[in-house]
Amino acid sequence: MRTQVGIIGAGPAGLLLSHLLYLQGIESVIVETRSREEIEETIRAGVLEQGTVDLLNAIGVGERLNKEGHFHEGFELLFQRKRHRIHVHELTGGKYITVYAQHEVLKDLISARLQTGGQIRFQAEQVSLHDLDSERPKIRFRQGSDGEWQDIVCDFIAGCDGFHGPSRPSIPAARRTEYQKLYPFGWLGILIQAPSSAPELIYARHERGFALVSTRSPEIQRLYLQVDPRDDLANWSDDRIWTELHARLETDDGFQLIEGPIFQKNIVSMRSFVCDPMQYGRLFLAGDAAHIVPPTGAKGLNLAAADVQVLARGFSLYYRSNQRDYLDRYSEICLRRVWKAERFSRFMTTMLHRDEQHSPFDQRLQLAELEYLTSSRAASVSLAENYVGLPLEF
Amino acid sequence: MRTQVGIIGAGPAGLLLSHLLYLQGIESVIVETRSREEIEETIRAGVLEQGTVDLLNAIGVGERLNKEGHFHEGFELLFQRKRHRIHVHELTGGKYITVYAQHEVLKDLISARLQTGGQIRFQAEQVSLHDLDSERPKIRFRQGSDGEWQDIVCDFIAGCDGFHGPSRPSIPAARRTEYQKLYPFGWLGILIQAPSSAPELIYARHERGFALVSTRSPEIQRLYLQVDPRDDLANWSDDRIWTELHARLETDDGFQLIEGPIFQKNIVSMRSFVCDPMQYGRLFLAGDAAHIVPPTGAKGLNLAAADVQVLARGFSLYYRSNQRDYLDRYSEICLRRVWKAERFSRFMTTMLHRDEQHSPFDQRLQLAELEYLTSSRAASVSLAENYVGLPLEF
Repeated sequence: MRTQVGIIGAGPAGLLLSHLLYLQGIESVIVETRSREEIEETIRAGVLEQGTVDLLNAIGVGERLNKEGHFHEGFELLFQRKRHRIHVHELTGGKYITVYAQHEVLKDLISARLQTGGQIRFQAEQVSLHDLDSERPKIRFRQGSDGEWQDIVCDFIAGCDGFHGPSRPSIPAARRTEYQKLYPFGWLGILIQAPSSAPELIYARHERGFALVSTRSPEIQRLYLQVDPRDDLANWSDDRIWTELHARLETDDGFQLIEGPIFQKNIVSMRSFVCDPMQYGRLFLAGDAAHIVPPTGAKGLNLAAADVQVLARGFSLYYRSNQRDYLDRYSEICLRRVWKAERFSRFMTTMLHRDEQHSPFDQRLQLAELEYLTSSRAASVSLAENYVGLPLEF
Repeated sequence: MRTQVGIIGAGPAGLLLSHLLYLQGIESVIVETRSREEIEETIRAGVLEQGTVDLLNAIGVGERLNKEGHFHEGFELLFQRKRHRIHVHELTGGKYITVYAQHEVLKDLISARLQTGGQIRFQAEQVSLHDLDSERPKIRFRQGSDGEWQDIVCDFIAGCDGFHGPSRPSIPAARRTEYQKLYPFGWLGILIQAPSSAPELIYARHERGFALVSTRSPEIQRLYLQVDPRDDLANWSDDRIWTELHARLETDDGFQLIEGPIFQKNIVSMRSFVCDPMQYGRLFLAGDAAHIVPPTGAKGLNLAAADVQVLARGFSLYYRSNQRDYLDRYSEICLRRVWKAERFSRFMTTMLHRDEQHSPFDQRLQLAELEYLTSSRAASVSLAENYVGLPLEF
């Protein structure tokens, strides 16, 4: 089997890239280990930057997002029992924060891809990459453990297969540097059936630890609580979760957290990770395969969308005018943005979490950071411009 | 002996306070351990915020400063062999950075105080504070080791005697909290006879460590080099200093560091320190007696000037209208500003210094911070507004 761009992974990066290429007349095939149902049913957060929303609209997959997404003009920082609004819309000259879950974006993209003849090989097993430094790199896989081995011979391969996928390790270790930071923080996330407690997201810094109030739909809310990343869900009864959430979200201005039945709980750990370069021979990494951010800055999906826009442009220049130099600079262009997002994500994370290693001095500085941020217009603009997404540099 | 406000220390805080009180008809006496000559001849850095310059002008001691000071419209950040100008004047709506050495400010203040009948007891020994929680606190000292003990009975005492003075320890330990951070960085400072290498200050971040190019006068320059704070000057020959400065200040744009005879060398360590509260009974701490910042943010003298403006206002309200409540809030009002300055000073310090504890990830983030700061207008405004001084909140 032959294609122009072989894409590994049907997450946001792979699906978006495939659709961007389709719109430019470039053929691609996506190889994905999960089933369509699994992808569409894994509930994931989704805070979309203005640029990501603009992109989804521009490529014709924004219809449901515009109907069902929540468009917020700001968010709140809660500390010292007070809420402080960051009026993002006003601070950024009219941009919005869009809350629309990642799996909904994926549904829209899968549907758009299949409607336009896109090829997605779901439930591919034992996916491997070959001949990356040749002119004809290959993706090998089989469907079902008895299935025949299939090769997709490509001009290029896009590794959009997430942090644990086979693409990144296919770059020889001597040809890449991996930067990593593990945070001593975990998030216990719950999904509840209840109306939303607040019209916008609330990021709370409290002596007991971070908490986040967010929403999925008018009926389903997503709440997070900082816990030890090695903690066990068995230690967290519903009662304990509510007690802790109420304590961390207590304000002097009468904010009321609305409770509801908890129907899902999980604990995630937090890391920052960057692979440099994001390319090797004819392989290009995009999204989580190349970089991970802690969720505090809400950047994950948006970085993937930025990567594939650069990559699609590179392929387009290659196929239309035989220019290879832009593709050669893919990693350099993406990493500039990636490091800024890593910076912002660490900033948000360290500012809002309780850190056992912090001295009393560090704790007071954490509050000073929040006080400065909410009292200086320049600092608020800086926070807002990062939150809605720095301009894409091509 | 009797006075309204007894002031311990003839540094910037004590002298400024004394003059501010004089202008409002409030009597004070300054007690100082050093001689006038020693104070006036100890060469100290001096980067003055716009608000400090405005204050010195307003109280009539700005004449020499306006003639001899250097008024900069910006400063430079040097990293990755490139200089990036922070155009402070434009970013802050017209404010300047004034370079005028601290001992010059002190000469002007001592002269102004003595010309207007101010009382300064130089070379006071064994200064101690008494009866702070009474209506009549006392300062005790003697001049010369055979001199008679003298008591100054005051309405209030202002502890402006620096980090090592007797005022802060006179607050019972149970009634104050001390916040502290020691940085693993030292600055080796040199004074040289040479024309200036650059019209504005240059803050350099380099893999080998921080460097700073600043000026004292058209003929005398002040250069700094990050070293281990426990390092010995004996390890630093002139040759080694120049080699290291040249390495850290190398650029692709042809910057030339001008050498000259080194006539002074010293190594200083860096700390952040805050005492909370800054008052106890009828004692009020101001300046370094209450808080220390690392020099990277150039905030030391300016924080002292801010403190004493609040304190002078408090005394004025007390004597003119018998209001004590503003004085009671002195510490609270000052600490809001102090913590923001501590935040900024730590930010500048961690962004610019080589830290042996830093992982490769941390090092890349340090560069990302600088890249973001110099590419975002909002971030540049935030840097500039802190550098020239956040607005004074009374």
